[in-house]
Amino acid sequence: MKIRGENPVCIAGAGMTAFGRHEDRSLRNLFAEATSTALAHAGIGAGEIGMVVAANSMAGMLQSQESVRGQVMLAGTQFAGVPVVNVENACASSSSALQVASWALLADRVDWILVVGYEKLFNPDKALTFSALASASDVPEDKRVGSIFMDFYASRARHHMDAYGTTVEQMAAVSAKNRRHGALNPQAQFRDEVSVEDVLQSRVVADPLTLLMCSPISDGASAVVLTRGDRLAVNAPVVAVKGLGLNSGDNTGPEFKTIRRTAWQAYAQAGIEPTDIDIAEVHDATAIAEIEACEALGFCERGEGGGLAESGVTTLGGSLPVNASGGLCSRGHPVAATGIAQICELTWQLRGECGERQVNNAAIGVAENHGGLVGDDVAVAAVTVLERIQ
Amino acid sequence: MKIRGENPVCIAGAGMTAFGRHEDRSLRNLFAEATSTALAHAGIGAGEIGMVVAANSMAGMLQSQESVRGQVMLAGTQFAGVPVVNVENACASSSSALQVASWALLADRVDWILVVGYEKLFNPDKALTFSALASASDVPEDKRVGSIFMDFYASRARHHMDAYGTTVEQMAAVSAKNRRHGALNPQAQFRDEVSVEDVLQSRVVADPLTLLMCSPISDGASAVVLTRGDRLAVNAPVVAVKGLGLNSGDNTGPEFKTIRRTAWQAYAQAGIEPTDIDIAEVHDATAIAEIEACEALGFCERGEGGGLAESGVTTLGGSLPVNASGGLCSRGHPVAATGIAQICELTWQLRGECGERQVNNAAIGVAENHGGLVGDDVAVAAVTVLERIQ
Repeated sequence: MKIRGENPVCIAGAGMTAFGRHEDRSLRNLFAEATSTALAHAGIGAGEIGMVVAANSMAGMLQSQESVRGQVMLAGTQFAGVPVVNVENACASSSSALQVASWALLADRVDWILVVGYEKLFNPDKALTFSALASASDVPEDKRVGSIFMDFYASRARHHMDAYGTTVEQMAAVSAKNRRHGALNPQAQFRDEVSVEDVLQSRVVADPLTLLMCSPISDGASAVVLTRGDRLAVNAPVVAVKGLGLNSGDNTGPEFKTIRRTAWQAYAQAGIEPTDIDIAEVHDATAIAEIEACEALGFCERGEGGGLAESGVTTLGGSLPVNASGGLCSRGHPVAATGIAQICELTWQLRGECGERQVNNAAIGVAENHGGLVGDDVAVAAVTVLERIQ
Repeated sequence: MKIRGENPVCIAGAGMTAFGRHEDRSLRNLFAEATSTALAHAGIGAGEIGMVVAANSMAGMLQSQESVRGQVMLAGTQFAGVPVVNVENACASSSSALQVASWALLADRVDWILVVGYEKLFNPDKALTFSALASASDVPEDKRVGSIFMDFYASRARHHMDAYGTTVEQMAAVSAKNRRHGALNPQAQFRDEVSVEDVLQSRVVADPLTLLMCSPISDGASAVVLTRGDRLAVNAPVVAVKGLGLNSGDNTGPEFKTIRRTAWQAYAQAGIEPTDIDIAEVHDATAIAEIEACEALGFCERGEGGGLAESGVTTLGGSLPVNASGGLCSRGHPVAATGIAQICELTWQLRGECGERQVNNAAIGVAENHGGLVGDDVAVAAVTVLERIQ
């Protein structure tokens, strides 16, 4: 893939809504805010956009809007007529959409592309929300009881504790860190800090995972504008998409092998090693997922993710801050909007625009996003490597 | 876009299920048949496939399967682990997926890609099927009464009759022709011929459209294998993807302007004129849509599509056969499977593999696929130009 070439795919602008409970706002309204802030950040008008790749995962079941979801979001706006591709890949929908948009750019299909992730999970019928979430799996409809995903992560957590001696305190440390980071992020759903003790004392969702170890139900939208590097100003910071990994789950074992091979696919494309990475956003759908993702991404050895979480390395101020945004546990997790929210955070960090939560001199960032469940593995893993190239 | 280059995107193989009422077969079963026949046609094994682009439009509402639909189709098969992108664009879902796959090839992301369209519309709850179909529009949920799409086409038909003197007999001629073609297609849903009189006497669905002027509810799946030309054998026919147009609707007027500009986008890329085209598959969701599509594609002047339908030009044996497969009215219309079914037909025709319905010496074929409804225009238009290059 030509992504490392002289004229790479670049992120011209990034914007998102605050994530949270937005029952008074429509999906269209959230989509529009993310889009307009990304365009403003890129400094271009809607008329420049030659294509929109729109990622949503559950509007069919939750808003009875299938098929042409993105076009409906754009109807009557300045984007009328622009080609739209609707992409769906569960919690990894918008990072998959980023890949589709990158291919379209590399194929010289268009010059400027908008990628939007948008999702409204809060619903007056709470059972419908859980039913929609459960549909991101190969579990037959009549067997979808409880929270399939929290059960999946709980089982992983128990395995990790048994195999490596990982403790609930280490998982709680992940959550406390991410809430501390989220407190510095105006767009985070939860902005109050919690202690390790608070995390341990919150109610058990799926043993050993407590409520504060789990990402919440959220509404929100996120967007980036992509173009080729030669179209960007030479006197501003430029963030390039240097590596893209995408795979489906293929094992039923207890390790995040699918995420590992996807990370190495992206690293190889970018020409980097894990030690080159300055900052990461990982998919902490639960605290154990961050611990395992850090291992799969090569930030530590297999089994050492719990220790890493307590070491301070992954905290703001540490040598490799993970989820400076607050991650899914604190920023929130509107399914299809999460992947691009990670890309937004890395873009802003690499450009030095993150204010209180800014990581100093970050040049290379990696985003790990996964979703869905097939067999006993994630259905999708997507890893993106971004690099500030000027 | 580099699609006309020395090493174009090519269709290595094409396969589909029969379209029809398959209440005894699962979506997975239909998906698997289309996939295995396309692989067999390409002469390659599943292990060669580096990516799957899967197009489905309504499994969220109809099968409670959102988010990772393609991965669920592939779970436990030889494709385990292969990256999957799920694409949705109403009736144009799988032709949009073809474009995504072409970009991935042109970006050198993979060498062999499988594109699959699959849909099961028959449902024990018939109202749910109509509700899912209506969701492919920007009509608010509480205003989706009757068949939004048949009302849309009926309104277009009345306008065409008023403005150009188009007659119901001309529309019936389209249907009778397509049923005559479909009678020669083993994969068509309806294989019995009907006369113009039969069409006119069938019940009115939305005045002036009668039942036999409308595409049916269908189940089915279709698939193609794509690769770059340099990977194909030199001693076999090779069909290349020479032009790809994709747009969203941007007008509320009575003309198919969105389809016209999409066609010219594809023609420009392919370096062809309408007069170069030997065979076409168009989106006859209703008979009037074929009449208007022929005009939008430049096969005749605006307003002359009715006369063209009666002239014999578009019939097998005529100078420009349209819908030799039987089209949507006869082959059937399992929403997301239709776009690739058109590509299957053109591929087989250009390779000379169509038996009784073979068009002689066809070298250039065009497929027109549209879907959804936003405002008073189609939500998506997709046009593909294929050419036999050896």
